[in-house]
Amino acid sequence: GDTITIADYLLERLTQLGVTQLFGVPGDFNLGFLDYVESHSKVEWVGNCNELNAAYAADGYARVKEGSIGALLTTFGVGELSATNGIAGAFSEHVPVLHIAGVPSTSQQKSKPMLHHTLGDGRFDAYYKASQQFTISQASLTDAASAGAEIDRVLTDCVVSARPVYLMLPTDLVHEKIPAKRLRTPLNREPPANDPESEEFVLDEIMKLVGQADEDIIILVDACAGRHNVKAELAELVRKTGFPVYAAPMGKSVVPETYERYGGIYVGSISRPEVREKVENAKLILSIGGLKSDFNTGNFTYHIPVQRTIELHSDHTRIQFAAYHGIGMKHLLPKLTARLQPLHEGARQLVVPKFDAPVPTEDNQIISQAWLWPRVAQFFRSNDVIVTETGTSSFGMLDVPLPDGAVYVSQILWGSIGWTVGSTLGAALAARELGLGRTLLFVGDGSIQLTVQELSTMIRLGVKPIIFLLNNSGYTIERYLHGYNAHYNDISNWRWTSLLSTLGGVEGTNCQSHIVKTKDELDALLKNEAFAKADKIQLVEMIMEKHDAPKGLKVQAELSGKTNKG
Amino acid sequence: GDTITIADYLLERLTQLGVTQLFGVPGDFNLGFLDYVESHSKVEWVGNCNELNAAYAADGYARVKEGSIGALLTTFGVGELSATNGIAGAFSEHVPVLHIAGVPSTSQQKSKPMLHHTLGDGRFDAYYKASQQFTISQASLTDAASAGAEIDRVLTDCVVSARPVYLMLPTDLVHEKIPAKRLRTPLNREPPANDPESEEFVLDEIMKLVGQADEDIIILVDACAGRHNVKAELAELVRKTGFPVYAAPMGKSVVPETYERYGGIYVGSISRPEVREKVENAKLILSIGGLKSDFNTGNFTYHIPVQRTIELHSDHTRIQFAAYHGIGMKHLLPKLTARLQPLHEGARQLVVPKFDAPVPTEDNQIISQAWLWPRVAQFFRSNDVIVTETGTSSFGMLDVPLPDGAVYVSQILWGSIGWTVGSTLGAALAARELGLGRTLLFVGDGSIQLTVQELSTMIRLGVKPIIFLLNNSGYTIERYLHGYNAHYNDISNWRWTSLLSTLGGVEGTNCQSHIVKTKDELDALLKNEAFAKADKIQLVEMIMEKHDAPKGLKVQAELSGKTNKG
Ligand SMILES: Cc1ncc(C[n+]2csc(CCOP(=O)(O)OP(=O)(O)O)c2C)c(N)n1
Ligand SMILES: Cc1ncc(C[n+]2csc(CCOP(=O)(O)OP(=O)(O)O)c2C)c(N)n1
Ligand SMILES: [Mg+2]
Ligand SMILES: [Mg+2]
Repeated sequence: GDTITIADYLLERLTQLGVTQLFGVPGDFNLGFLDYVESHSKVEWVGNCNELNAAYAADGYARVKEGSIGALLTTFGVGELSATNGIAGAFSEHVPVLHIAGVPSTSQQKSKPMLHHTLGDGRFDAYYKASQQFTISQASLTDAASAGAEIDRVLTDCVVSARPVYLMLPTDLVHEKIPAKRLRTPLNREPPANDPESEEFVLDEIMKLVGQADEDIIILVDACAGRHNVKAELAELVRKTGFPVYAAPMGKSVVPETYERYGGIYVGSISRPEVREKVENAKLILSIGGLKSDFNTGNFTYHIPVQRTIELHSDHTRIQFAAYHGIGMKHLLPKLTARLQPLHEGARQLVVPKFDAPVPTEDNQIISQAWLWPRVAQFFRSNDVIVTETGTSSFGMLDVPLPDGAVYVSQILWGSIGWTVGSTLGAALAARELGLGRTLLFVGDGSIQLTVQELSTMIRLGVKPIIFLLNNSGYTIERYLHGYNAHYNDISNWRWTSLLSTLGGVEGTNCQSHIVKTKDELDALLKNEAFAKADKIQLVEMIMEKHDAPKGLKVQAELSGKTNKG
Repeated sequence: GDTITIADYLLERLTQLGVTQLFGVPGDFNLGFLDYVESHSKVEWVGNCNELNAAYAADGYARVKEGSIGALLTTFGVGELSATNGIAGAFSEHVPVLHIAGVPSTSQQKSKPMLHHTLGDGRFDAYYKASQQFTISQASLTDAASAGAEIDRVLTDCVVSARPVYLMLPTDLVHEKIPAKRLRTPLNREPPANDPESEEFVLDEIMKLVGQADEDIIILVDACAGRHNVKAELAELVRKTGFPVYAAPMGKSVVPETYERYGGIYVGSISRPEVREKVENAKLILSIGGLKSDFNTGNFTYHIPVQRTIELHSDHTRIQFAAYHGIGMKHLLPKLTARLQPLHEGARQLVVPKFDAPVPTEDNQIISQAWLWPRVAQFFRSNDVIVTETGTSSFGMLDVPLPDGAVYVSQILWGSIGWTVGSTLGAALAARELGLGRTLLFVGDGSIQLTVQELSTMIRLGVKPIIFLLNNSGYTIERYLHGYNAHYNDISNWRWTSLLSTLGGVEGTNCQSHIVKTKDELDALLKNEAFAKADKIQLVEMIMEKHDAPKGLKVQAELSGKTNKG
């Protein structure tokens, strides 16, 4: 038709962006909108157990469904504020998430009655104001005339900047009709073009440094290469130039870790010595999408002089000490590749250390951190989606290479524990839709307690992740940071193997729980085909030592313990 | 000693305010402080499963431990933001809660490195700014010199205004020493004195209206009478004047519901007819601590002309249309009581309808809403703490009188579901300390899913609430508001009776689960002495009808459904 309700307009725009699932929790200020969702043919409603988990799910969905966005719907005040941490995390980690809050009608927002879910003092804009701290763009819909343009504005900002945005959707406006015409013009999804003259200048400057580098150039892949939708451009650069490639922790698996010219993870002084040597001694480092946070840099221990660094970012470029604002990598990369391609022959001569992680032989049956990660790495298959929680898991996984096409999901800058449980739901739904492999979650006994209820949503929706639960009697990562034996790092032990059946699963039918206490038991389970084919949701409780941690974590903890004191 | 660390200074102040439990979740920016907590002899650390639950627990603790405050400790960004909804709820509902966020050191806050838990863009003040929307007062400690005064300032604001406050505690400052001398002066806990001249004027004005009222005066007790620490003053007023007393939903049990001159709940057009008649026809209504939110007023259906109303608030007084700012009820009440006392004889003549709720006879075994509430009311004992969740529970409980000394805990203005689970933890700890009765929670199957993990903290700490779980296949309250049969109001059904044992309990030893499907089964359980003595944590799953709701909810839903559309 010529007109469309605002609700359907929004749902159409989401559909155009590839959104097939809307996460959230109902509430009386969004129920009217939910009727439109329920009748919509493309967007499916995923009711979550709580709003924080919903935000995490939208984040995980967006990470796996590259080029699309995550979307969540909450209710005024109580719902939206519960999602705050999830939204702030998406901001911090450059994840495009649309947060729709169902809010009181436009007339109520003017007359300001003391409604439930208000602060009781007539401030109807308080949640909006808080959201400004954590989203890149906000819209409070106030009338039908501007609604379409406002929706388009925030959605465009969301996609283009890969950051969360906030939309207030009043109960009355969802039903209002607006012209459908705008929908015929798809939203812009590309970052703005670079100014040709500056871009040319930047390329020339880069080539000057390249010329001086005797082909001793390496590529360092980081977070924003994955988040700002330049994987294809990067793959071209890597393939056509043949330069050695390394990744920061947040860039893990953006370039497949099986690639023969890939050398593994560079994380400052925590890196494997052979990687550190190659990266820090290269004449020129081409950093793609760098994000130099403490845990992503071995606590700021990069030993790479700025003089030898070129940084490509989503919206600017840095060459040595100079910043070129507005020159973004999406458009720059293909041109740079074209210029660098001739160096291919020389570049191929550079030796790249092999990234492998043999399973160590230990003469005991303890499931040690040193043994676990290489062992599970052998279990991985191409296109698996691998999610690791902040804690020993996110550190441990850094040390092992992931197979071809594997998607790696972790939250190294924001580091909010519990995030993986929600995130795995979103990731698994996206993976199912995209036809990826299994979804494998590695999560600590401490972290899972924050958001555990979302397992029930996985069961309800029939996604089938394998949840590897590291039962090491509490907050091991924190023990290394502070309070090695302190009580505040202890937690209650749960009956983990009855979790799935308590939360709605039927053991043996649509869920399966396992407990492993020894290397042999875990080994046997990983070799079991019925287990590995992951045809139901599974939880594996792994009994581990309280005071065991991956080596990288031990070093990091020492370094950051010092920092926190200063 | 002459000096004291800032950490211990804060803990001493909390102790002076009667705080014995600190809720929260550890994180590397608060671990240093936690060492001081762990060695402190008076303040005990309660590690929660997540930060939202911790905020809810602090809120529940503060509600039951009148005159004290609740306190929670979180870590920078990820932790504190997870608590946002809980803090905003405490603001909305006038609950004094101190939120301490462990934050990076003062030098890091200046140099702004890209630490984990930051937004990655150098804004170290973003969380502080967000907190300004939801707390009455904030302090960001920056040096030892001002720390003591800053801590005192926010704590005083917290107690005096009965609202949450926010304190940023940097990792380095916790260890800094400051003079201990300030601690010898206890914090002011009283609201400021009323200006004597205006107060006298106000009393005269009130007495003029009283004089015209022919002794046909009623007292209407509301939320802020409970929250702003005037229970004793109010009890005097009630006892010495003998005026009939009614309560708004948020004022329930502030005056004991067994009091012979108490007539029950007034909630506008939803009230029982005899209550409505008495309240709306009284010549003068003395409203104490009124908070006229939608769900507290039968959706704004008070039929009481302003001309007949006197409102006493914590910081102002209203007489008909006139507002007297700065004249607060804490100091005004005793003087008003003195003036009104002579009316006692006449006041006693006014008839007060009896508030009782006989158990209806129904010729079926369904545990109906109409039957449930009167039936459980018979189970209550004096000094029980009764917590009800938003949903059918908070509406149902309004219809039945609570016994002497019962403490009623609910969240009618903010209405964030899941709140009761955390809140019950805090309430039960406070009740145990104060020697109150049992803690009884009534919560829906939908609501408990948001925050369920906190049951494990109850088990660990050995508090023994009875959790009455209304299993009515989803969001019944919402079905009445919108979407009677909509899928978005369905939830997954859990194996509720294995919840406690999954979350760390040992069935039959320190926990007990029950399921009741009929009136007879519930009746038998309630009569069972072993059950009633509540010597372990218990969960009672009650199978109820999806489309059954208390009458008050049905009417309210109709009214507010209309409002949401406008
Ligand atoms: C929301 C949130 N609260 C608190 C923290 C602080 N924190 C970081 S790691 C951690 C412990 C994680 O423990 P666990 O999941 O058991 O991991 P492991 O034992 O494997 O290290 C905590 C409490 C956080 N990062 N996020
Ligand atoms: C944090 C939060 N999210 C969403 C809502 C919207 N909401 C209000 S009541 C309710 C359903 C409660 O269902 P249940 O606990 O089962 O209660 P009952 O069935 O007894 O009505 C929901 C989702 C809310 N109030 N708070
Ligand atoms: Mg652990
Ligand atoms: Mg229910």
